[in-house]
This record gives sequence, structure tokens and C-alpha cells, in this order.
Amino acid sequence: MKKITKLLVANRGEIALRVLRSAKEMGLQTVAIYSEADRNALHVRYADEAVCVGPPASKDSYLRGDKILEVCRQLGVDAIHPGYGFLSENAEFARMVKEAGLIFVGPSAEAMDIMGDKLSAKQAVQAYNIPLVPGTAEAISDVQEAKQIAQQVGFPILIKASAGGGGKGMRLVYNVEEFEEQMQLAINEAVSAFGDGAVFIEKFVTGPRHIEIQVLGDEHGNIVHLFERECSIQRRHQKVIEEAPSSVLTPELRAEMGRCAVDVARACNYTGAGTVEFLLDDQRNFYFLEMNTRLQVEHPVTEQITGLDLVKEQIKVAQGQPLAFRQEDLQIQGHALELRVYAEDPQNNFLPDIGTLTTYVRPQGPGVRVDDGFEQGMDIPIYYDPMIAKLVTFGATRQEAIERMLRAIDEYQITGIETTLGFGRYVLQHPAFVSGNFDTNFIKDHFTPESLKPAAPDEATAQLAAVLTAMLLTEKKAPAAASDAPATTTGSAWKRNRLGVR
Amino acid sequence: MKKITKLLVANRGEIALRVLRSAKEMGLQTVAIYSEADRNALHVRYADEAVCVGPPASKDSYLRGDKILEVCRQLGVDAIHPGYGFLSENAEFARMVKEAGLIFVGPSAEAMDIMGDKLSAKQAVQAYNIPLVPGTAEAISDVQEAKQIAQQVGFPILIKASAGGGGKGMRLVYNVEEFEEQMQLAINEAVSAFGDGAVFIEKFVTGPRHIEIQVLGDEHGNIVHLFERECSIQRRHQKVIEEAPSSVLTPELRAEMGRCAVDVARACNYTGAGTVEFLLDDQRNFYFLEMNTRLQVEHPVTEQITGLDLVKEQIKVAQGQPLAFRQEDLQIQGHALELRVYAEDPQNNFLPDIGTLTTYVRPQGPGVRVDDGFEQGMDIPIYYDPMIAKLVTFGATRQEAIERMLRAIDEYQITGIETTLGFGRYVLQHPAFVSGNFDTNFIKDHFTPESLKPAAPDEATAQLAAVLTAMLLTEKKAPAAASDAPATTTGSAWKRNRLGVR
Repeated sequence: MKKITKLLVANRGEIALRVLRSAKEMGLQTVAIYSEADRNALHVRYADEAVCVGPPASKDSYLRGDKILEVCRQLGVDAIHPGYGFLSENAEFARMVKEAGLIFVGPSAEAMDIMGDKLSAKQAVQAYNIPLVPGTAEAISDVQEAKQIAQQVGFPILIKASAGGGGKGMRLVYNVEEFEEQMQLAINEAVSAFGDGAVFIEKFVTGPRHIEIQVLGDEHGNIVHLFERECSIQRRHQKVIEEAPSSVLTPELRAEMGRCAVDVARACNYTGAGTVEFLLDDQRNFYFLEMNTRLQVEHPVTEQITGLDLVKEQIKVAQGQPLAFRQEDLQIQGHALELRVYAEDPQNNFLPDIGTLTTYVRPQGPGVRVDDGFEQGMDIPIYYDPMIAKLVTFGATRQEAIERMLRAIDEYQITGIETTLGFGRYVLQHPAFVSGNFDTNFIKDHFTPESLKPAAPDEATAQLAAVLTAMLLTEKKAPAAASDAPATTTGSAWKRNRLGVR
Repeated sequence: MKKITKLLVANRGEIALRVLRSAKEMGLQTVAIYSEADRNALHVRYADEAVCVGPPASKDSYLRGDKILEVCRQLGVDAIHPGYGFLSENAEFARMVKEAGLIFVGPSAEAMDIMGDKLSAKQAVQAYNIPLVPGTAEAISDVQEAKQIAQQVGFPILIKASAGGGGKGMRLVYNVEEFEEQMQLAINEAVSAFGDGAVFIEKFVTGPRHIEIQVLGDEHGNIVHLFERECSIQRRHQKVIEEAPSSVLTPELRAEMGRCAVDVARACNYTGAGTVEFLLDDQRNFYFLEMNTRLQVEHPVTEQITGLDLVKEQIKVAQGQPLAFRQEDLQIQGHALELRVYAEDPQNNFLPDIGTLTTYVRPQGPGVRVDDGFEQGMDIPIYYDPMIAKLVTFGATRQEAIERMLRAIDEYQITGIETTLGFGRYVLQHPAFVSGNFDTNFIKDHFTPESLKPAAPDEATAQLAAVLTAMLLTEKKAPAAASDAPATTTGSAWKRNRLGVR
């Protein structure tokens, strides 16, 4: 067994701090790297040693694999944890690490190569019974042949230009009668846009939900799955609220998707923590999308429902240890939710906001976990992902996890910057979310910037009148208008502006 | 069913805030009370309404049941949660609450009466097979009769003056040969101290561990136990570190103690959350001590291993709801630890320290929960219990919970006041604690003020030399000397005093 004694975390922000915490609990020595923009970051203060690797731009610092390896040589580091993003899915870097005689805390470069390319991934899983979105395996230009395939696949179907991108040469066709005309239009559009009329036919997945399965493999051939995460609430095709388990999976479907995910991992001899992403349609058919060969941002919800520390599991596997449990030892305990608290303005198309955290007080208490990398007075740098924190809540039931999330959002005090906290409150109170009846179109279907507007003046006036009446009796504070509060009013659980003190 | 809509919390500090959080999650309106010393306390800011009930001294504010009921009348409160301490075990107050037509979130006044008195408690459980510490049921003064009883009970035995207190007239006797002489000495001492020579004979429990069982009963006759808490680490006969489960209980012993605890609760028709305390000797015999008819300070460790929110369970029972689970539905998940962070100086006999929290930053991350009632800049008032916070950690195993506690202690930043954080770090690293081989004598056996003294100068110098050497290479920070750090150096995970910045 390879014993890791000194771990370098090749990342920044909340994930760097989160990895360092587990490493510290395991008794490892720790090394942080940072760019000039992150001199005062918490991960820099938390690690035993910290080294600046370059200017703010990621390509000049966090992506400089050569510099990072030089730091490892100088400080006697024996393993590198890449976090997510940056170098985490860079097979070439994983090879360099291995060639330098160090341990890369992640899968082999070969597994990353296979799963990093959609075509090679599909080829790799061919030997297993993994459902893919039905359609043509190769580009096609014969209208009659395409029509036949479309009928086999079943409508609605999507026609996509082989050379396409950005929606050009893409047609959504609802029935066979429209097919020939729509395909001709798609071919014409593709020819004029790309000079190539070949197209793909693919089943159009209606009401799609993004469901992913966490897997964990060791170097001894053991692979288990740690159940699913529901990640359908997305803005700009990026996740913002995740939960585990999904409210839509039956035990049978969960077992079947779990089996498929383990097979996908087996197809590339996967080791460590990975995520197999599926699309689930409104008939509960699921289709393999891709595998992410790294720790996922939303891994905490899986930690909360399994009681496992995924970073520790990654490190143990990287040391050559076999998994300490089998599939049948694992079971779901309770329910967990994650809200990504981004420095973004939900009322302005979720555009990133930058600035200083003039107030920053985290929620506390039972069932609440905050993973972040900031403290009050710090700036959110412009150079990187604008995530401030991951707010995770858990409870015995989905309802309790939701109630705790709403309570935690109300306790969270952030000023100086726009965040997604108010958006999270809106989603968690929306009937579609509460009922579990939603898909990846949630924001398109249910959210407008007006959704977060404050209460109408009439209502506010009535509230004030009630408060003033009550003050005659005692010191009553303004009632919290949780769902009506503007996104900038965070921390409404704390009545800072009390109307009277006896 | 009685539906609670507006809850008053008749308490302060961390427990008031903790109860308010659960009430908020349940959608209840909340009312806080406070003394003049707590004007700026977090529980005051957190509740929807808050009313000052008097001057700082508890007897003039938090113990003024009449004033509290007046507040309830004025604000339309329909239920009172007493927390722990203050009025929580006051049967007369519970009666007043009921007579005022309000709900007391706790057991009946009758159950409190029975368990509030040790003699009536023992009488109540007589019908059940509950082991008590063997000895004389009544005071005795006949030496020969006492000797016979002592031989039945088995040595060592304790002779205690009936009218005694403070150890006067108390004798520990190891064998029958010494008995007559020691009893005579005890009688003489008792006569001269109290004018009464009657004594009790009681088995002396060697290597005693304090193990308590959490129970939960509803108004429909259902009573379950939520397993045990190990509370043997005590200073001045008060708990400071608790854990669940106990490392010394077998499944059979757990089931047997659980059954006894449920029977004790049944003996007084107990409703709500209560705790049955036992003494466990070094032969794993257990003896019923007493029942605490309220929420316990250390209830969070039970919440962490069961996934239940005990405050919500209390409120549901108070509303007349039946328990939503049976004994066989409950199982232990993982391991939890609690360290009470007191404003006390462990190097000075744990004397209370008062002052201002000039720095106060809580630990975060996976497996950590902090229940407190303070924030940076606040004063610890002299009038009340000097507990600042309850630091709770949990993990898949006891070892992980310990590692997380050590990590969390190192992250906790408190300055301006002496705390028990460094003491906690000492205990959690002590071989006796780590092995699980300890009892209520832990501090007497293993702790002196010198235990927390910083490392010897030689060692510190060696460390500094190593650091200076390393600095030539990169910016290395002073290594954390966790176990050697003085109690005042909290938050050693954060290297604020970095030795060099490149």
C-alpha cells in the first residue's frame, strides 16, 4: 500500500478548504497553492504550507501543472488532490503526476481519456446494457432512411446538423407528417451554415430530469454506487439546487440506474469517486449522458445521506486501500439538499456580481452544513467561478430538509453582493418543487425576475399597521416576509431593525 | 389534537436559539423572553417577538413564571417550551401553565413530582425490575444488622450519614474486617456533626460510568428509547464531554438498559423527551440513579445518531400527536461527540471566566454542528451558566468523530476569554479516552493544570529551527502544535501569523 503523508490541493475556494479539512482529520500534512488574487484566502491560511504559483488568471496559476509539480518536488509532497474544475479532468496532467512518481487522487489517465470523449465513452459501454438516447449512431443525409429511423425511435425527435452548434441546423419534429419537410429545412440550413448537409437523428427527451449516480471504485476491482443526486434545477445549463435522494425514483429504478452506473465505471476500470450522469424522461426511461471523472460540486448531499466522507474515500482508494463496504452495506439515511450560493443577480439573468462581503454570517444549528471559502470583509474575485458557498441541509424527510433550508436561508446574512439565496427561497417554496413535479425546464417554466420582487405597497402598509398596533402592547418586531423579501434582503431571521425596545 | 401556533421559549442562550430554530422550521410563531442582561442576545433577535421580563438575576426574570404567563396572555401564546434549567423541572410552574389553558412542552406535573424526589422515584419503579444501587432502604444504627447487610451487598461499601452532606460521616469500607470500626467512626462523626447517628449502607460502585438513556413518550401510551449517551467525562460533577453510542455497551446491555429506561418512564406515565440516568460499574452492572424530566443539554448527540429532531418531537407530542415510529424502526447511525465549550479556566480548577468574546469564529465543514447563543463582540454575562457553545461532531465511526472534534477545536477561534477547548483537545487525545477505558474519575486520574502547559522550550526551539530552514525553500508556516498548545491558543488551524510571504 502506498501511504500518503503530504497532500497538495491543486485548487482554491470552498473545495480546497473542504479537501484540506478531511486531510487534516486523516493526519496528513497539507500544502495549498494560490494565485496572487487569493493571497488572503481561507484555504491558504488553513494548510500547513502554502505556495503562490502565479498571477490571478487561472492559466497562469491554477492550471500551471508544471509549476505545481515543481512545488511538490520542493516540499516533498507525495500526492495531489485536484478538486473539481481546473486540472481535475486533465488526463495529461494525471499522467505527468504519475510520471513524477506522485499519486494523483483520482482515476487513471486512461479512464479520463475514455470518458472525456463522448464517442469513445459510448463505444466503451457498448459491451454493457446501458441505455443511450436512441437515434443514429452516425451522420446521415438520406431523407427516406432518416424517416425510417425516426419512426423506429419514435416522435418527437430532434434533427441536429453533424457539423452544428448553437442550435443552427437543429429541428424539433413532433410527427411523421412533418418529417420530410423539416429534415430538408435542416439540411439546407446546415449546408448554408457549415457547408455540410449531414445530420443526426435523436429522440427528443420530454420533461427531462438530470439524475446522476455517484460511484466509487478501488484498485481491487470493487465498484459500488452511492445512490443518486437529482440536479434538475439549473440556470444557464448549470446546476444550482441539488438533492438526494430524488423524489421521483422508485427502489427498482434506483437499483437499475445504480447497476448501469457501476457498469459504466467498470467499462473504464474506474477508481476513486466518479459520477455517471443520466437523463430521465417523463416516462421514467433513463439514458446515459456522460461520466464526470472527478469529485462533483454537489457531493455533500451524497455524504449526508450515506454518512461517508467522499474525500477520505478518494484518498484511501488512492493509497491502494480496498473499499471498506459492499453495495449491500449501504443505505439511504434521510434527505439532503444543496443550494449553491452564487455571487449572481437572479433578477438580471443570473449575471455574476462581484464586490466585497460587507456582512457575512453563516447559518448554524441542527441539520445545516456550510462549505465555503470566504469570510466577512473578503472580496469575491472576478477571475474565478462566482460561487460563495454551498448551503447544505439534511433531515429525516425531504420536507424537513426543505424546512431547514428555508430556515438556513433566512439566517444567512450576506450584504455587499447579490446572491442566489432569494432565488433558492423562491424555488423551495414553489409548488412544483415541493411536489417533486419538475424538470430541467423549471426556471424557464416557473421563474421570471419579477418572481423575487418585494410585496406590493398595499401589503407592506398593512403589515406596518399591524406592527404599530402590536407595539402598543409589547415590543414586536416586523414580521418576516420571507417569500416576499427582495433577493438583497438576506438574513431575515435576524430582526436587526427592531421597531421598539421596552 | 391541540395545534400549537405560537410558542414562547422560557429560556436564554444556546438552548433558546436551538428551540426557536426548530419552531421556525415547523412554521410556528415564536416569542422570546429576556432579562435586562440579555437585551442583545441572539435568541432575542431571532424570535418574532421578544419581551423583557426583568432584571439580570434569574429569580427576577427567567424564573418569574407569573410574568411569563402574563406575556403569554398579552401575546396570544398557546404553548411554552422551558428548555433546560430555570423552570424546566418546576412542577408547580407546569401546573400554572396548564391551569392558564396553555400547553407546557414537557411531561405532566405529576410525572415531574414523582421523578423530582429520589425516594418517590424509587417507590414508583418498585413494580418494575429496575436495578438500584444495593443497600439499606432506610437509615440504620445497629452495627451488627448493618454488618449483615454489608455482607449481603458485597464490599466495598459506602457508609453515609443519614443527615449528612459534603462527605461528613461518610466512610468507604473495603472488607468485612474493617467494618465495625469504620461504622463506629461514621456514627461518631455523624453524631458530632449532625446530632444524629443513623447511617445508610450502600454498595460502592467502582469505576463508575455515567450512562443515560434518552426516552420519548406520547399521550397514547407509546414509549421508546433513543439509545444511550456516555457522560462520564465530568468536572465538578458536571458533564463536559458526552458521546453516543457508548463504547462500552454491548447490544444486549443496550437493549436491557433501554428496556429499564422505558419502564421507568412508564412508571410515571411519562410524555415527551426525558432522560433516565444510570451508573454502570466496572463489571457492567447498571443501577438506576434518577430521571431528568426535561430536554438534556447533551441531546444533540442523540439527534445526530438517530436523525431525529428532539425539540420537534417534544412539540409534536405536546400537540397530542402519536410517535411516528416504533422501537424497531430506530437504529444507531454513526457516532457523535459533544464538547461543552465553557467560559472557564481549566488550568485554574475550571473557575468561570467572564469577559468579551473579542474573537469568535465557529468551525465549519462536514460533520460539525455548533449550538451557541453568542457572536463576536458579545459579553459572557456573569449571571448565568458560563457555557458559550456546544461543539458537536459526528462521523461514521467513533474514531472519525474524534478526528473531526480535534479538527473543529483547532478551527474554533475564541479570544478574550478562557475556554474548555484546550481541555477538550487534551481529553480527546488521551489514551484512556481514545481506548474507551475511562470512568467518572477521568479528570482526577488523568488531568492536572500542567496537562495543558505549552511544549518545553527545547522542543519549541527545534520546531522554530525547522521552520526557518524550510522558509529558505518556500513560505512555510509554523507547524501546528495541537496537543502542546496552551489552552488560550484556540483556532490553531488558521495560521494567522505566517512566517513569510513570497
